[in-house]
Amino acid sequence: MIIIGEKLNSSIKSVREAIAARDAAFIGELALNQDKAGASWLDINAAMLPDEADSLVWLGETCRAVSSKPLCVDTPDPEKAAYALEKLGEGCMINSITLEKARYDAMSALAIRYKSPLVALCMEDGGAPETVEDRVRIATALRDRLTADGIAAQDIYIDPMISPVGAVETAGADALAVISRLSATLDTHLVCGLSNVSYGLPARPYINRAFMVAAMAAGLDAMIVNPLDVQLMRLCLAAEAMLGKDEYCENYIDAFRDGYFND
Amino acid sequence: MIIIGEKLNSSIKSVREAIAARDAAFIGELALNQDKAGASWLDINAAMLPDEADSLVWLGETCRAVSSKPLCVDTPDPEKAAYALEKLGEGCMINSITLEKARYDAMSALAIRYKSPLVALCMEDGGAPETVEDRVRIATALRDRLTADGIAAQDIYIDPMISPVGAVETAGADALAVISRLSATLDTHLVCGLSNVSYGLPARPYINRAFMVAAMAAGLDAMIVNPLDVQLMRLCLAAEAMLGKDEYCENYIDAFRDGYFND
Repeated sequence: MIIIGEKLNSSIKSVREAIAARDAAFIGELALNQDKAGASWLDINAAMLPDEADSLVWLGETCRAVSSKPLCVDTPDPEKAAYALEKLGEGCMINSITLEKARYDAMSALAIRYKSPLVALCMEDGGAPETVEDRVRIATALRDRLTADGIAAQDIYIDPMISPVGAVETAGADALAVISRLSATLDTHLVCGLSNVSYGLPARPYINRAFMVAAMAAGLDAMIVNPLDVQLMRLCLAAEAMLGKDEYCENYIDAFRDGYFND
Repeated sequence: MIIIGEKLNSSIKSVREAIAARDAAFIGELALNQDKAGASWLDINAAMLPDEADSLVWLGETCRAVSSKPLCVDTPDPEKAAYALEKLGEGCMINSITLEKARYDAMSALAIRYKSPLVALCMEDGGAPETVEDRVRIATALRDRLTADGIAAQDIYIDPMISPVGAVETAGADALAVISRLSATLDTHLVCGLSNVSYGLPARPYINRAFMVAAMAAGLDAMIVNPLDVQLMRLCLAAEAMLGKDEYCENYIDAFRDGYFND
């Protein structure tokens, strides 16, 4: 699995305060901990800060001082993304593009200019999709358009935009159906912001873990998650072994030998 | 989910010794703990004892002294099953029947005589199946033959006979494919002896939990498991909520309110 660490997000109060105070020790520790815990990418989000663009740059530089993991610049605003990418340079992932015309045009141009992989949300002008069919249609359109514009399929991370099961009872089953369909037809990555599924429910980590495993079985190969949830990360390794995606269960057995499963 | 508690099994050394010593306090506690932890059925297995049939009866009576949960008489030997059922009476589940001729004839007769639901293993004369197609074919034949013989589909628990992923890399994915196929075509229950999947691997509970969630998403509705694995049982509740099988997430939220997710 490709793990995008979600913790450097300004929607988390302590993180928002640390960004506002430019507390490099706090942010650096969170970056390094996610790196050590197995994050492949570090998502940075400063949308709740009044100086979002400068905060994104500061977050990115603060991460780079402690970790070599690449950054995932998380903003819906192409101008903020452009500002951050100009300072942070090539190789960052952009989170996210959609099929909405203005956002599509601006973000795809940035992705080409800065050689950026992209998280592509299943959204179009007129709002978020409600049905499995709509999501599959938008995902396919995003893939086709992005590759036609010169972005490699392997740099595209389609996100089906899962709704909370606490609000929409079929949200989990629908998301799994979308992932399963797309996994059979698309050559892109498939990613999810995992914790959306449990929004509004108690004991959220259990819902997140259950969704992760089922989504991996359906074909999810990337996720935006909290890599500091050890139970989640252990279960992720176990799911890879169980699904035959870990040759000879080697990663799993090595992790066990390294004490990864010790409490 | 229908939970069949697996702990009263003579392959577990402490249980075997307790059966041999007729230690009713030990066995009764294990029965009651599984009952309280959410088991719908209590599996009883005495295959490792020289007096298997008498041990089965003693196990059953010892369970009944402390728990009202029905029993699942676990033996491959129709004569032992007949002996146990004669003493224990109607309403026990039989674990298990197969498509092997001698076993099929004897066990199906017992099931009819004692109104017993049946675990039906995907095995036929000539051995265990290796491919997804073989398992689907045997499962379908078992269902068709048992219902033709007068056993209701809702009393049949088809078990696809999962192999350990530590030995057969595709075992997990194959089992999920079988469950998914059967869930779309059969009107029976689908059950698994969950821990087989992790045989030979370290940190087995994680593999079991991952397989459980993916199998539930594929359509499994019953499992032979250790209900004393709290992480597994919490994840089972979470998976039901996530899959839309728990209306308004009511069970999940109630369990949370009752402190079920407190560590």
